[in-house]
Amino acid sequence: MSTVRLWTDAEVAGDARVQAVFDDIRATRRSDFVNNFWRALANDAAQLERTWGALKQVMVAPGALDPLTKELIYIAVSTANGCSYCVHSHTAAARAKGMTDAQYGEFLAVVGMAGQTNALVTAMQVPVDPEFLVG
Amino acid sequence: MSTVRLWTDAEVAGDARVQAVFDDIRATRRSDFVNNFWRALANDAAQLERTWGALKQVMVAPGALDPLTKELIYIAVSTANGCSYCVHSHTAAARAKGMTDAQYGEFLAVVGMAGQTNALVTAMQVPVDPEFLVG
Amino acid sequence: MSTVRLWTDAEVAGDARVQAVFDDIRATRRSDFVNNFWRALANDAAQLERTWGALKQVMVAPGALDPLTKELIYIAVSTANGCSYCVHSHTAAARAKGMTDAQYGEFLAVVGMAGQTNALVTAMQVPVDPEFLVG
Amino acid sequence: MSTVRLWTDAEVAGDARVQAVFDDIRATRRSDFVNNFWRALANDAAQLERTWGALKQVMVAPGALDPLTKELIYIAVSTANGCSYCVHSHTAAARAKGMTDAQYGEFLAVVGMAGQTNALVTAMQVPVDPEFLVG
Amino acid sequence: MSTVRLWTDAEVAGDARVQAVFDDIRATRRSDFVNNFWRALANDAAQLERTWGALKQVMVAPGALDPLTKELIYIAVSTANGCSYCVHSHTAAARAKGMTDAQYGEFLAVVGMAGQTNALVTAMQVPVDPEFLVG
Amino acid sequence: MSTVRLWTDAEVAGDARVQAVFDDIRATRRSDFVNNFWRALANDAAQLERTWGALKQVMVAPGALDPLTKELIYIAVSTANGCSYCVHSHTAAARAKGMTDAQYGEFLAVVGMAGQTNALVTAMQVPVDPEFLVG
Repeated sequence: MSTVRLWTDAEVAGDARVQAVFDDIRATRRSDFVNNFWRALANDAAQLERTWGALKQVMVAPGALDPLTKELIYIAVSTANGCSYCVHSHTAAARAKGMTDAQYGEFLAVVGMAGQTNALVTAMQVPVDPEFLVG
Repeated sequence: MSTVRLWTDAEVAGDARVQAVFDDIRATRRSDFVNNFWRALANDAAQLERTWGALKQVMVAPGALDPLTKELIYIAVSTANGCSYCVHSHTAAARAKGMTDAQYGEFLAVVGMAGQTNALVTAMQVPVDPEFLVG
Repeated sequence: MSTVRLWTDAEVAGDARVQAVFDDIRATRRSDFVNNFWRALANDAAQLERTWGALKQVMVAPGALDPLTKELIYIAVSTANGCSYCVHSHTAAARAKGMTDAQYGEFLAVVGMAGQTNALVTAMQVPVDPEFLVG
Repeated sequence: MSTVRLWTDAEVAGDARVQAVFDDIRATRRSDFVNNFWRALANDAAQLERTWGALKQVMVAPGALDPLTKELIYIAVSTANGCSYCVHSHTAAARAKGMTDAQYGEFLAVVGMAGQTNALVTAMQVPVDPEFLVG
Repeated sequence: MSTVRLWTDAEVAGDARVQAVFDDIRATRRSDFVNNFWRALANDAAQLERTWGALKQVMVAPGALDPLTKELIYIAVSTANGCSYCVHSHTAAARAKGMTDAQYGEFLAVVGMAGQTNALVTAMQVPVDPEFLVG
Repeated sequence: MSTVRLWTDAEVAGDARVQAVFDDIRATRRSDFVNNFWRALANDAAQLERTWGALKQVMVAPGALDPLTKELIYIAVSTANGCSYCVHSHTAAARAKGMTDAQYGEFLAVVGMAGQTNALVTAMQVPVDPEFLVG
């Protein structure tokens, strides 16, 4: 159970600002399905508008990285942050964007390797090589 | 400073198992540079062999994901885990594999979005939509 | 399911040290309800006494921060640590201490901003400005 | 060292979009000092505008939570995420907004308690009490 | 629900590489029970072989640390990473290896102390004493 | 640099409550060295007393786990939490309590395995086996 109310479509229809965002989500994604994250954010119209606006700009607009790569990066962060909902929703999004089983298998292998070497590096407190400092 | 000794090339030369791994790292990467992570792992030859063996299989061998995508996934996990060394080393690796400034900018935007929505989802304890459960 | 037994009131009644802590929790909170965290800690009377003693001193005793602010800090840490139980229990506590929907909305916005900028800062490894170093 | 270039004021002056954000940061904060986070974000004007726009809306605009409380929430998240830069910058901001030593001492105590009980709850996998589920 | 299919014994029987790993898990643990982690990894035979091979070498082979100590370290990491499944499976493994209630109580106390002092240290950004730098 | 002042011995001598804790730390550890963590906590005498009191009870008093095992658990949590200071101080403590290179090597291997499998389990959202639920 969430700590906030999840807005039904009927409730959304009663708030013009929220309805406008939901309309844009549906139009942008070409799907009638609006997942619980947005129904939870609907409790704060300003937060809903800001979050959807940024997500649309970052994840939907065409850019230098393809959509599937962006989803893999999203799942990677969500995994390390232990966000179960986010792992589920973005893994589903990655599949919808064409992720194959072979790609997912390699993704998991990289995430596992990173989890292992992150732990080893932190436990040994390895100092950064000067060669890596280019900033 | 690390919690373990970082092996110099001279020390590596005195241990055949460690030397063999360092030789393979140099040959595989076509570079004489061996970074501190491996010099720290050199204190335990079995761990060094196991870690390099797995990394080579996961990150170097050709597969369904291109090498740059794998590096981006690696940086994403390392960022969420707060591993400074890992962020530095894999960002350098991504640049070496051709990451452009535009790609890096989008990568950062996705990582930032994921950090934000992970926090919002966890704070609101949003329940997973049944539509995402395909396992 | 927990990894330890959750003590019922009947079981608590059979252990004088545990019963004394439960009595103090009920008296301090002016409520008969004792939540599962304390029923789990009851398996180790010393740990139960130490944890309740510290929590009472930190969260209940009057001080320089008001009780609601302390709960918001608690939820913030629990969110970043991904502790679902802690998010639920302290969000309920914040509401019981008068948190309004507007306050909660702003709290969520700050937690989201922090999640985003933490990720960006760590990914870019931004060095601390000398102006911030006052210690 | 950061993974990106930190823009100097001279470099900022050469990019109208970046300069406009820096001008607004200075005007909003009534200070000439612009910290490294913004100098790092300057590498991507869209990300700079989006992040400052959201931060201004969330942290600066008057609302239901006072500015100091927002900073304490920010430090709490940054601590749990292990973001050293963020801890430093927002602790400095909290002091600038009037945080007393007594308030900071209590803040630290709450953060420590949360760190402890988060760990205990997760290790024992305590199930959420039905009384907390109000969503 | 998992993001991947959990292989049944019948499905395992249809893949010789997967079957070989499952046989070795059962023989090594002297138990017919194979837990869900391996049934999930079965979707990628190379990952399954690599992970079981490493786990067997690290956790099962006799060494300088006794098996129960290794399990306690494993639960400690899993707790801090917020991995519910891992906490459950390794706490069960620790009990199977003889962990007493008194040992578990002390383990929880240490994990709680570490959670608290980690948070305090990070919030105060305590600099490392030169005395600790021996690497 | 820390966010708080690190108390020198001269400053400690001017505060009876702080001095009493420092005396007990020195007597308990049979060493004149008091590390920075306590010098930072000295800014809040109540927090200093409470933290040292709990740490002494948990880490120093004889119990069901030997002192080295407790230190290994402490480093494991500190590693996963990314607390550099804590990793350094408790690794030094573990060595002082007799940790051999072989034990440390195995510890690192377990921490690395846990980091890897935690990531894999979270990414795949593996459901807990009913066999593990004994609470």
